[in-house]
Parts: sequence; C-alpha cells; structure tokens
Amino acid sequence: MSETLKRLAAVIESRKLANGGDPATSYVARLFAKGDDAILKKIGEEATETVMAAKDARRDNDPSKVLYECADLWFHSLVMLAQFDLTPQQVLDELARREGLSGLEEKAARKDELRDAGEADKH
Amino acid sequence: MSETLKRLAAVIESRKLANGGDPATSYVARLFAKGDDAILKKIGEEATETVMAAKDARRDNDPSKVLYECADLWFHSLVMLAQFDLTPQQVLDELARREGLSGLEEKAARKDELRDAGEADKH
Amino acid sequence: MSETLKRLAAVIESRKLANGGDPATSYVARLFAKGDDAILKKIGEEATETVMAAKDARRDNDPSKVLYECADLWFHSLVMLAQFDLTPQQVLDELARREGLSGLEEKAARKDELRDAGEADKH
Amino acid sequence: MSETLKRLAAVIESRKLANGGDPATSYVARLFAKGDDAILKKIGEEATETVMAAKDARRDNDPSKVLYECADLWFHSLVMLAQFDLTPQQVLDELARREGLSGLEEKAARKDELRDAGEADKH
Repeated sequence: MSETLKRLAAVIESRKLANGGDPATSYVARLFAKGDDAILKKIGEEATETVMAAKDARRDNDPSKVLYECADLWFHSLVMLAQFDLTPQQVLDELARREGLSGLEEKAARKDELRDAGEADKH
Repeated sequence: MSETLKRLAAVIESRKLANGGDPATSYVARLFAKGDDAILKKIGEEATETVMAAKDARRDNDPSKVLYECADLWFHSLVMLAQFDLTPQQVLDELARREGLSGLEEKAARKDELRDAGEADKH
Repeated sequence: MSETLKRLAAVIESRKLANGGDPATSYVARLFAKGDDAILKKIGEEATETVMAAKDARRDNDPSKVLYECADLWFHSLVMLAQFDLTPQQVLDELARREGLSGLEEKAARKDELRDAGEADKH
Repeated sequence: MSETLKRLAAVIESRKLANGGDPATSYVARLFAKGDDAILKKIGEEATETVMAAKDARRDNDPSKVLYECADLWFHSLVMLAQFDLTPQQVLDELARREGLSGLEEKAARKDELRDAGEADKH
C-alpha cells in the first residue's frame, strides 16, 4: 500500500479514544468523540466542497483547488474507515478485486443496468 | 504510490477519448464524453451512498457495505482527478505535505477557526 | 398552505402503491416501489445538481438553472416527506414555529454554538 | 403562496447587507456576507443531514427528525434563492408550470431517458 496512506491510517488509529486520543488536542480525536454522524457529515461536506472546487478550477483554469479538496475528502474517508475498523488497504483490495478497470466498469455497468431495469417499463 | 492506485489511474487515463477510449464499450470513457458535471454528479452520488451505507453498517453491524461504497467514491475521485489532469500521487503528496496527521489536523483546525471567527461575533 | 404544494402533495400521495400508484406508468410510484434509499439518493443528487447549477448561474449571470434545480430538490423533498407520512404543511409549521426568522436564526445559532462548544477546547 | 414562505422570504431579503442586514447580529446576514460558496455548502450539509435523519427515522420509527432537517434544507434553499434574487414563488410557479405531477413526472422521465440514451449503447 501507499506509505502515505499506511502512515495516515496509523496516526488516525492512534487518535481513537481507546488508544489514548485526546479530544482536547486532536481534531481527529474530537471527530471520534462525536461519533458516526459527525464523521459522515464531513463526507457530505467535503464532497460538496470538492464539487465547488472543481467548478472553480474549470472557470479559473487552475486545478490545484481540486487537489486540496480531494485530499480533504480522502482524509475524512480514512477517518470513517477507522471508525468502522476498516483499513485503506481493504478499500484498495476491493478496487483490485474488481480486476482492474474492466472489473470496475463491469460493476458500475451492472449498477446502471439494475437501475435501467427498474426504469425499463418507462420506455 | 499504491500499485493499485497507479494501475487504476493508468487504465482510467487510457479511457480518455484523446487516448482512444470508446464510450460505446467503456463506462469511464462515457463519463469523460459527458464531461465535468456528469463526473462531479457521481462524486455527490457516491458520497450520499457512502453515508447511507455507513448508517446501514452500524444498524446491521456489518461494515462491508462501507468498504464497497468507499471504493466507489475513491474510484470516481480518480476519474475526476484524471478529468483535471491530476494524479492520485499528487493527492497523496498533498496529504504527506501536511506533515503527517498533525499537519492535517492543523489544517482542519485552521479551517474551523476561520469558520468560528466568522461566527464569533454571535456569542 | 401554498395551493401548489398542497396539490403536489396530494398527487404524490396518490402515487403510493397502497393508493393504486403504478410503477409501470409513474416515476413517483417507481420511487415508492424502490423505497427509502432510492428516494434519499435523489435528495443527495438534486442537492449536488443545485450546487453545480448555482456555480454555473454565477458564471453565466443566468439564475434560471438555480430555479429548475431548486424545484427538483423541493419536489423530491415532497416525495421523501410522503414516504415518511409527513406533509409539506408540517414543514411549513415547523418553519413558522421557529417564530419567524429570529427563531430560525436562534435555532441555527444554537446549532453553531453546540458545534463551537465541541470545538472550544481547541482555542 | 404560503404565508410562511412569503414571510420568511421577506425577512431573509431584509438580512441582505444592502438592505441593512448586520452580520454581527444575524446568522443569515453572516451567510450573505460570506457569499455563494458558504450558502451552497449549507445546501450540501443540510441534504446530508436530511439523509442521515431519514435513516434514523426509519430505524427509530420516529419521523420527526426528517421534519426538522427538511425545514433546515428548505430554509437554506430560501437563502440561496435570495442570494440569486429569486423567490420561492418562482420555484412554486416552476413546479406548477410542469402541470401538476404528470408534468413533473414527464420532466423527471425525460431526464432519465436522456441519461438512459447516453447509457443505451451499453446494452
């Protein structure tokens, strides 16, 4: 796995209250102290900020803001994974398990087909 | 970088229309053909599905759905990065540049402080 | 209540399967047939589309797209309310109950204060 | 139009800085002072909170939280409309213009058909 992801996951893990994380000094420990909804709310917030940053990036012809917001989104994803005792390696394994992109595309296509099947009677 | 992320990024890159990606056979090429808004809409959708999966995961005591939806969210993040000619390595570099979690926490805290400053006159 | 909201709520109610709604001919009946997650996913989607439309509206100096997407967002809110056997009148009553905007502001402020309290030890 | 919506829209309008709104005392004036992105971020946040509240409502068999979060979502929609010099009446007119639900369903269906058309070559 990426050394950065591995290192981040380890530090995030250490911020859990059970591992001595201190809400008084750590933003991540504070998220853990607040629980699921506070963490999930951040997923929604960072996704919205990513979308706005991407609209700005296109307008300003400067993609750097997309980078920052995507980093925020991934970072809070790591906190969420830790909250559910999951690791980024498991997400990467899942991505790999889908057998490269063809597997991923198959999966995404299947999802669309299920949706289309539900809509099919409209046509 | 993670081999999986590198490989995924390469395959996604190959799906760009300029690189021969074919919307008739590839889901990712189809997203590229539709453009920014279709890709950004997926970020919003996958974030919402991740939040719902996490609520189900807690209720059912089964975190696997969080894994699948997080994989979907990261996958579509990779498509967005490619759309803006960015790489996952750059996101990982940004995460590392924040000097481990303390840097990340500093950044997130700064963000909160700015927000709190804006709210401060309320108290 | 607004005649439009009242009329829309009545038609949406009639699309429930228990009230004879037919997924084969009605988009709303199809949403009801799919259930909670399909309806909630639309809330996330329409919110994302509203945000993108607003960014476009500012860029293009044409707010009409905000109108269309806000209508979509409110429409799917009405479907969600019906799914939980709630009415738009109850939402309007809740908004009125907050005693005009000062009550609303008080409520939003209270929410911020709770959040700030959680963040207070950071300062 | 609903008296509540009309009254809310009027108070929100009065909170614009140009109309004497004071960020020091008013939450809405503070949102106007921050501008588009702060307001749009709230749309994303409130949509996420609505989705989480609905998941809780189903689990706890208590729909009241959906009501509160939907009120928050609509309230911040009104702030967004004001930011773009639009009124809730225009949104209601747009909803009515779609000729009751059949028009709305037609519109939603058309949207799906466009999407399905884009996906059609997959089948």
